[in-house]
Amino acid sequence: MSGYTPGEQPQDDGFVKLNTNENPYPPSPRVAEAVAAALPRLNKYPDPTAGAFRRTAAEVLGLDPNWILCGNGSDDVLTIVTRALVGPGEAVRYPYPTYILYRTLAQLQGARFEEVLFQSDWTLPTDFAAEAEGVKLVYLANPNSPSGTMIAPDDVLRLAERLPCPLLVDEAYADFADTNCLHLPQQCDRIMVSRTLSKSYALAGLRFGFLVARPELIEQFVKVKDSYNCDGLSIAAAAAALADQAWLAEHRAKLRATRARLTVALRDLGFVTVESQANFTWNTHPTEPARPIYEELKRQRILVRYMDYPRWGDGLRITVGTDAEIDCLIDRLRKIV
Amino acid sequence: MSGYTPGEQPQDDGFVKLNTNENPYPPSPRVAEAVAAALPRLNKYPDPTAGAFRRTAAEVLGLDPNWILCGNGSDDVLTIVTRALVGPGEAVRYPYPTYILYRTLAQLQGARFEEVLFQSDWTLPTDFAAEAEGVKLVYLANPNSPSGTMIAPDDVLRLAERLPCPLLVDEAYADFADTNCLHLPQQCDRIMVSRTLSKSYALAGLRFGFLVARPELIEQFVKVKDSYNCDGLSIAAAAAALADQAWLAEHRAKLRATRARLTVALRDLGFVTVESQANFTWNTHPTEPARPIYEELKRQRILVRYMDYPRWGDGLRITVGTDAEIDCLIDRLRKIV
Repeated sequence: MSGYTPGEQPQDDGFVKLNTNENPYPPSPRVAEAVAAALPRLNKYPDPTAGAFRRTAAEVLGLDPNWILCGNGSDDVLTIVTRALVGPGEAVRYPYPTYILYRTLAQLQGARFEEVLFQSDWTLPTDFAAEAEGVKLVYLANPNSPSGTMIAPDDVLRLAERLPCPLLVDEAYADFADTNCLHLPQQCDRIMVSRTLSKSYALAGLRFGFLVARPELIEQFVKVKDSYNCDGLSIAAAAAALADQAWLAEHRAKLRATRARLTVALRDLGFVTVESQANFTWNTHPTEPARPIYEELKRQRILVRYMDYPRWGDGLRITVGTDAEIDCLIDRLRKIV
Repeated sequence: MSGYTPGEQPQDDGFVKLNTNENPYPPSPRVAEAVAAALPRLNKYPDPTAGAFRRTAAEVLGLDPNWILCGNGSDDVLTIVTRALVGPGEAVRYPYPTYILYRTLAQLQGARFEEVLFQSDWTLPTDFAAEAEGVKLVYLANPNSPSGTMIAPDDVLRLAERLPCPLLVDEAYADFADTNCLHLPQQCDRIMVSRTLSKSYALAGLRFGFLVARPELIEQFVKVKDSYNCDGLSIAAAAAALADQAWLAEHRAKLRATRARLTVALRDLGFVTVESQANFTWNTHPTEPARPIYEELKRQRILVRYMDYPRWGDGLRITVGTDAEIDCLIDRLRKIV
């Protein structure tokens, strides 16, 4: 197997970086305060249960702390759930195209993967809920990447009720959407929801994510995770970021407004731009091939994500940056297409 | 399976904590500076290869950076190596008693585990190197926990040459020892060495460890790890801590001196205290049972680690704290035993 390859991460700052769905704004100022306060305890092991974060999340999200499991990024949460539920020779299912990591997680477990093609309008075909031998876990990125589209929460609930196994709704981008599924684990045994602080809270560098699921599932997952999977600085920082809901509301509104501008501008340039509920848009062009556009932008120090999905096609996934970054992108694109 | 249970981690500061081998001193002051400098980039993903740390480690340790893999604590490194090398139905081998996590890692992979009893003087029996069906990985904690004893590097090399599979030398405590095996991966294909910054660099709260192995092995392990397994703050902090070798030398000397005092004092109280190369000692008593001592100390807000190993026996593992903490412990013990 080849492993999962993340987007390019140049370590110098000379790029306009619109390729890995990072938030262009610095995080809440409370993060730096929380990190400073946590430093003196760094010689001691962190709380293995990340209690400080779970208590804050419970309060902010209206949940009980024992419904929450924390991870070293939501990738860690996805790994934990997969290792706990899926054995060698068993299978996972997910729509296609979607987050490429799901396939890698299955391969690492020696499990099969069923990739069910989205319909052309990014809705799920009926057979996505079909019975199938050995399927132990279904992933649903919602909003999806690369499309930015969503399956409505009511439809997710109906899907879960028909599925033969648990459904993990990966809500990495949900804070940018109109709705979300965070309430569903309490309505349906089979639904789990994962979140990350990487995108909406501008903490990609921190690695912090969490899962919302029934306590009896959480107990099983705790056995699989590294004892101290979250470090002391990130627990404190993540709790502080989540507690600052005013910061989230302000930056969410800003990015949604920029997303609307980006969408209009790309369509004006002739792109077919999918209406997005995330902090990126998915773009194809009826006449201009995608790869040369990506390459030319990169030469001009603007990184967007070129994605080529066999059986589906290629396109450009463009992260919603600041207004200035988007202006710069559009300006360059105008000379390319 | 029951999962791995770490030592008690009370989240209030009212305990003298001598139970989980933390360093009692705060880390190098360069850590706080490095964290502060890394904060402004927190909205961006970290370097997936932790290049800043690997370059520093290469320089400090006299290695090439492509011999180094970083992990979210050395537990993450152990997990990565196990997942990459050991499949379901295959087996791992390790001495017994040792770090309890090795068994959990095998169980999580659906693998068997061969526990080979140490000899009574904590040396390895000859058959530790025996051929055996399906053994794909051997772990050797060196210094070992709970004993604090070491297998000499030359003996480790001879062992590896006779083994049927790779040998992972877990050097979590090596900075407290007289010698170590960090040079062996370059002498023998089969040897890998893992390190952590948790103990000797006083960074248990940070979660940072690394592996030294041949580049072709590292490449395989990279496919198994989470893309962004180390966060941006920890990469910067770990690099800064490792670069401060003067801090390490000073605190290593301090803890080794306190270890000598602790050993003498415990022996004066009648304990059988194994000569330790780590930052803890392993203690039994010819007449006083261990568990009530642990319980009475805990009532008095001193935490030591009570360990009971089936087929071996129980005892107290006591972390080397500050001189004041050790004085306090010895003072209380004097009234108990």
